[in-house]
Amino acid sequence: MAGYSLTRRGLMLVLSSPSGAGKTTVARALLETESDLKMSVSATTRAPRPGEKDGADYFFVTSDAFNGMVARGEFLEHARVFGNLYGTPRAAVERQLAAGRDVLFDIDWQGTQQLRETAPEDLVTIFILPPSLTELERRLRSRAQDSDDTVRHRMDRANSEMSHWAEYDYVFVNRDLAASIANVRTIMVAERLKRSRQVGMSEFVNAMRLDG
Amino acid sequence: MAGYSLTRRGLMLVLSSPSGAGKTTVARALLETESDLKMSVSATTRAPRPGEKDGADYFFVTSDAFNGMVARGEFLEHARVFGNLYGTPRAAVERQLAAGRDVLFDIDWQGTQQLRETAPEDLVTIFILPPSLTELERRLRSRAQDSDDTVRHRMDRANSEMSHWAEYDYVFVNRDLAASIANVRTIMVAERLKRSRQVGMSEFVNAMRLDG
Repeated sequence: MAGYSLTRRGLMLVLSSPSGAGKTTVARALLETESDLKMSVSATTRAPRPGEKDGADYFFVTSDAFNGMVARGEFLEHARVFGNLYGTPRAAVERQLAAGRDVLFDIDWQGTQQLRETAPEDLVTIFILPPSLTELERRLRSRAQDSDDTVRHRMDRANSEMSHWAEYDYVFVNRDLAASIANVRTIMVAERLKRSRQVGMSEFVNAMRLDG
Repeated sequence: MAGYSLTRRGLMLVLSSPSGAGKTTVARALLETESDLKMSVSATTRAPRPGEKDGADYFFVTSDAFNGMVARGEFLEHARVFGNLYGTPRAAVERQLAAGRDVLFDIDWQGTQQLRETAPEDLVTIFILPPSLTELERRLRSRAQDSDDTVRHRMDRANSEMSHWAEYDYVFVNRDLAASIANVRTIMVAERLKRSRQVGMSEFVNAMRLDG
């Protein structure tokens, strides 16, 4: 019975939601407590905002560099949003998964759809809904000094993002932040117990049955 | 936005394992803390053992009564084990599920296979493995004054039951009882958050988007 190592495949955990529904706060709380979980850092051609760090918030790259990565197949998914390019570099994700650790993705429905095509077996997708659009708008207005036009634009985008909730594996309404964090953690722990992710289980059971 | 009730479909949670792997203890602990979870009580033609209560441990019925229930399609699954008949009455399970509550099943791989055919969308199946067959045999010997023959017979059956682990959704090794109870609870809570079980979510999202 010696020498059988029970490990597991890492998860690609996708959190999507309209902006303002609490996704970023949930993600941050998870990353603080889950040592096996790392955030996927996207590459983007947009300019850094004040306080954003290259390599931590995003990899800030030129359009030429981005297109080179696309051409070499170095992205798991990529998309153009509001005129800027965004993409998930493949290598860092694959290293983390191969080590039996999990990767958290903060991407929209389009990115999720692409991941579904490139890596369906490792993917676990969660959609977080706001309690109401009124509440969503209140949150968007309270957190920024955006113009009415910008808020309206974000609300349109939220509305469109929400139309894709039914493409996700799990869905819940973020009424209470602590409960929402617990929900995502619970989903992650349960998904780790899926038979399909148990590496070495076949050998373990076979060895046990031969011994018996 | 008023009047949209978000409820959920109940789960049929199946725990299978070779006898002695800890399944019954795990089930009992769950039932104590989860008010939304009820044990499915099987009907059987075998005689009650000392201490067993009709309607709590089993519904003890005659072969004629059992066969009548089979003929009327009143079982979700039924099987013959060691010359006795066992079956899961359909009505009690369906009442519990319709109320958005969950049902726990302590059945073997054959029963699980039948449930997969009759009610696949509500089913969540978990296989609990012992740490080793030596440990399993030790547990079987310690809990009963069974003869060597009986223990050998149970070990054969355990071996055969274990050959079906790969047919289950989730699998883990019961090394630590508290961790195993937590595993099953986590799986149950996560499965309740699956999109496919959210009743009324479509109406909720649509109403929200029209309001916005």
